[in-house]
Amino acid sequence: MSAPKQSIPDAEFYPHASAEAKKTVDAHQGDAPLKLYSGWFCPFVQRVWLVLEEKHIPYQYIEVNPYHKPDSLLRLNPRGLVPTLEHDNKPLYESTVVMEFLEDEYPDHKPNLRPDDPHERARLRIWTDYVTTRIIPSFHRFLQFQPSSDTKGLDEKRQEFLGHLREWTAEMDEEGPYFSGKEPRLVDFQMGPWAVRLWVFDLMKGGLGIPAEGQGGEHEKVWNRYRKWVKAIEGRDSVKATTSEREHFLPLYQRYADNTAQSELAKATRSGRGVP
Amino acid sequence: MSAPKQSIPDAEFYPHASAEAKKTVDAHQGDAPLKLYSGWFCPFVQRVWLVLEEKHIPYQYIEVNPYHKPDSLLRLNPRGLVPTLEHDNKPLYESTVVMEFLEDEYPDHKPNLRPDDPHERARLRIWTDYVTTRIIPSFHRFLQFQPSSDTKGLDEKRQEFLGHLREWTAEMDEEGPYFSGKEPRLVDFQMGPWAVRLWVFDLMKGGLGIPAEGQGGEHEKVWNRYRKWVKAIEGRDSVKATTSEREHFLPLYQRYADNTAQSELAKATRSGRGVP
Repeated sequence: MSAPKQSIPDAEFYPHASAEAKKTVDAHQGDAPLKLYSGWFCPFVQRVWLVLEEKHIPYQYIEVNPYHKPDSLLRLNPRGLVPTLEHDNKPLYESTVVMEFLEDEYPDHKPNLRPDDPHERARLRIWTDYVTTRIIPSFHRFLQFQPSSDTKGLDEKRQEFLGHLREWTAEMDEEGPYFSGKEPRLVDFQMGPWAVRLWVFDLMKGGLGIPAEGQGGEHEKVWNRYRKWVKAIEGRDSVKATTSEREHFLPLYQRYADNTAQSELAKATRSGRGVP
Repeated sequence: MSAPKQSIPDAEFYPHASAEAKKTVDAHQGDAPLKLYSGWFCPFVQRVWLVLEEKHIPYQYIEVNPYHKPDSLLRLNPRGLVPTLEHDNKPLYESTVVMEFLEDEYPDHKPNLRPDDPHERARLRIWTDYVTTRIIPSFHRFLQFQPSSDTKGLDEKRQEFLGHLREWTAEMDEEGPYFSGKEPRLVDFQMGPWAVRLWVFDLMKGGLGIPAEGQGGEHEKVWNRYRKWVKAIEGRDSVKATTSEREHFLPLYQRYADNTAQSELAKATRSGRGVP
């Protein structure tokens, strides 16, 4: 394993949301019965945050420094996980569970992010599971791959990730633009936070490798569908309202790229496991 | 890694359900719009099968030999996974997804295996996730641990598994007998298939290590609650109706204990990963 290229003390991480996300945070400081314990940079948090914003559910945003977790969170959730949602003075966590909870608890808040048809609802849950068990672990195996001089090994990780992304995209409704058709559903917001972070591979690990328009060869159709999807996701107000400046993500992602990050997911990836 | 103690050719696996499960299979041979592609021994299949039986949903049972998967299944699901549910001529899979589907699709079939309260529904989903991401992987790390002469390493795996089982049990409703109270819910049937297979550790890996009644020391209260839960689960008609003879499980579990099993889960465990 190569040595880290630079040492970034934990305290140097940018401490709070910026850009549009800062405005959203500022607008949600008042006390509310529903509280989101958040890290501004965390994609698992963003999954839940997107649903709160999409559905205009009232909530209080509480920024958590992962190195100085507040007692208010530790009392609810001894592991101090984010996202944790405080509801009825009790904790709920696991991002996909919380997203389903918000649909169950606020049926009058539109849009409805689950299709009414039970079969399609189940099909989308299969492809949510695929994001968690295939796409995210391969994203991290690619991002954390060491040493950087092993270009063959690195490309294997890149291709594994791209292959999973293609397999997922191939299951989309043909027209879209969202996974299931004209309306966004939970699965879009379950994958969205990783899709809008893929720019990190433009700066790290030798590039992402999704071909430019018209350059996809035998996979052009599926990459074209992916591009349509990601453009629709990036265009959602909820995505803009929960996204911070790229420059503040960089030190965080550099630690993953150097494989020195200490998050539970980073450690699980190092030990060969998936999303913990 | 020690050599397998005995070689059991795949073809020697008992080919179909026995005991009470055989009667259930025989009663579900007629054509039906809903088809369960099953392996009689598979705990992931049993999760779905239990819900079908609990709710008296009409279905056709189709036994699949994992070494000779029928074209009817491969057309639906190229990986030939079991359980696969054929509904509306299309496949649904992932056991927890299928269980939620059956609740969504058959709301008039009682019992209702999800609580009406959204918070409790979400809480139970957290502990379902815990079964899949913590309990089952540690069950397999214990069962597949090699070599058998490393009693210290083996005991670490045993304690890891028992620790997860205690953490899960500590989240149960105090009275029960089921996880969430007087009524069984999906989470009970998501863990049940492993609970009713724990007898394999009486014959393999030096014993399971759950203390006998009154012998639990500082953990007596939680083990007592676990015993009450497992007794309730074992008493369900659905569990009896989907359980085959123990002797036919043995060659299958011996291959896991020898770490020569070739299921996707066995291979994932060998490579250090969780439920694939």
